[in-house]
Amino acid sequence: MIKVILLGSGNVATHLFQAFSKVDEIEVVQVFSRTISKDFPENIQTSDFTEIREADIYIICVSDNAIASVSNQLQFENRLVVHTSGSTDINVLDSKNRNGVFYPLQTFTKNKAVDFSQIPICIETEVPSDFEIIEKLAKSVSNSVYLINGNQRKALHVSAVFVCNFTNHLYTIGNTICLENNIPFEILQPLIKETAKKIKSLSPSEAQTGPAVRNDKKTIEKHIDFLTNENQKEIYKILTKSIQNGEKL
Amino acid sequence: MIKVILLGSGNVATHLFQAFSKVDEIEVVQVFSRTISKDFPENIQTSDFTEIREADIYIICVSDNAIASVSNQLQFENRLVVHTSGSTDINVLDSKNRNGVFYPLQTFTKNKAVDFSQIPICIETEVPSDFEIIEKLAKSVSNSVYLINGNQRKALHVSAVFVCNFTNHLYTIGNTICLENNIPFEILQPLIKETAKKIKSLSPSEAQTGPAVRNDKKTIEKHIDFLTNENQKEIYKILTKSIQNGEKL
Repeated sequence: MIKVILLGSGNVATHLFQAFSKVDEIEVVQVFSRTISKDFPENIQTSDFTEIREADIYIICVSDNAIASVSNQLQFENRLVVHTSGSTDINVLDSKNRNGVFYPLQTFTKNKAVDFSQIPICIETEVPSDFEIIEKLAKSVSNSVYLINGNQRKALHVSAVFVCNFTNHLYTIGNTICLENNIPFEILQPLIKETAKKIKSLSPSEAQTGPAVRNDKKTIEKHIDFLTNENQKEIYKILTKSIQNGEKL
Repeated sequence: MIKVILLGSGNVATHLFQAFSKVDEIEVVQVFSRTISKDFPENIQTSDFTEIREADIYIICVSDNAIASVSNQLQFENRLVVHTSGSTDINVLDSKNRNGVFYPLQTFTKNKAVDFSQIPICIETEVPSDFEIIEKLAKSVSNSVYLINGNQRKALHVSAVFVCNFTNHLYTIGNTICLENNIPFEILQPLIKETAKKIKSLSPSEAQTGPAVRNDKKTIEKHIDFLTNENQKEIYKILTKSIQNGEKL
């Protein structure tokens, strides 16, 4: 049995609580947060640092800029304390405890269920002997667990912004253009799905199609002429140029 | 029975041939192309314009800049001739025939099978009475058929570049950053899949996450510092700015 305490009550804490609750070998003994949240059983919640119980692992799931402060306020020493942030160094955690990282690489939206078994979890530990328990915890909820060091995690976090946040913004632009022309956005859904699927069997650079990679100047010009929004024009031009300059494999 | 003749032997012609072949009510009576292709039965191929047979619908599946020339060289008049291009006006087709458009909105890669039933087909006809046969043909292979006029088709084509071609390029950048840091790209696959899936239940602007939309300046700065490639930095900045300026729903 691994005893876990969650510190935080946001998206990550909620999703982790739900995932851990399904596993026999894990017990979430407590959830710490400033205010009582209806997303967790009331009898395991506390908002008082002096009331935090003993556990095998403490998981801090708060916004990046609050991680240091929460870890500073912990009233114990030499226990295993991890954060769940992609962009935060392990050293931000107070050195009075043994530190680690437990970073689930996914985009969480409140009230939208996720299948944790499909979410990669990136783990890192300060003390090698802590690796085993963090790995066991991660593997109990996910099929893909990776040992990722601090610099790699930073790289992953930046990559995730490109493939998730920026990609979603391109969907927004596509949606805007459709709406302006009375076209239902659903018409683009199969294309979006296939684009995401294709790169499972081909590398993204092999999968590249479209006027930019074909150097089809006539179509590129037509598209730029068609766009009336200067921001969209600028994005079109810079991404076309980047495809043509051949971002490497 | 709808008799079809395909003009062209590339990706679109090959995929259409395969889809039509599965449908009882459609017969591909001939495939016209410059050279004999192994992708079609030899006995139905011709490369001579004077040998083109009679059919209910002629589908020109050649590169955009060859459409006009192929339609000019047709030796008959007043038959139904359509092209399959997203970015080409219907008027590019020679006016001696009744013209139309049959545009399957998907990214085709040679040797990669596609499920045509999931591909939206955008149709347009010059003569209203031709609508019925084109619609019948489209519905025989696809579950989603849309009547889309020329200007809407142009808009769709531009949108498709954003949500497909440019998105794939962002995948390429993510892949590059992973490779440079010895991270397997597969770790990003669940995130990519979820990002594409999320916008079926939320609008893309509702689904937006990440440092830009949170206005998390510290993380944005860290990311820009992390990137060493000037091109990647520029794309990061311009897309962050665009998210923050709030590309409309």
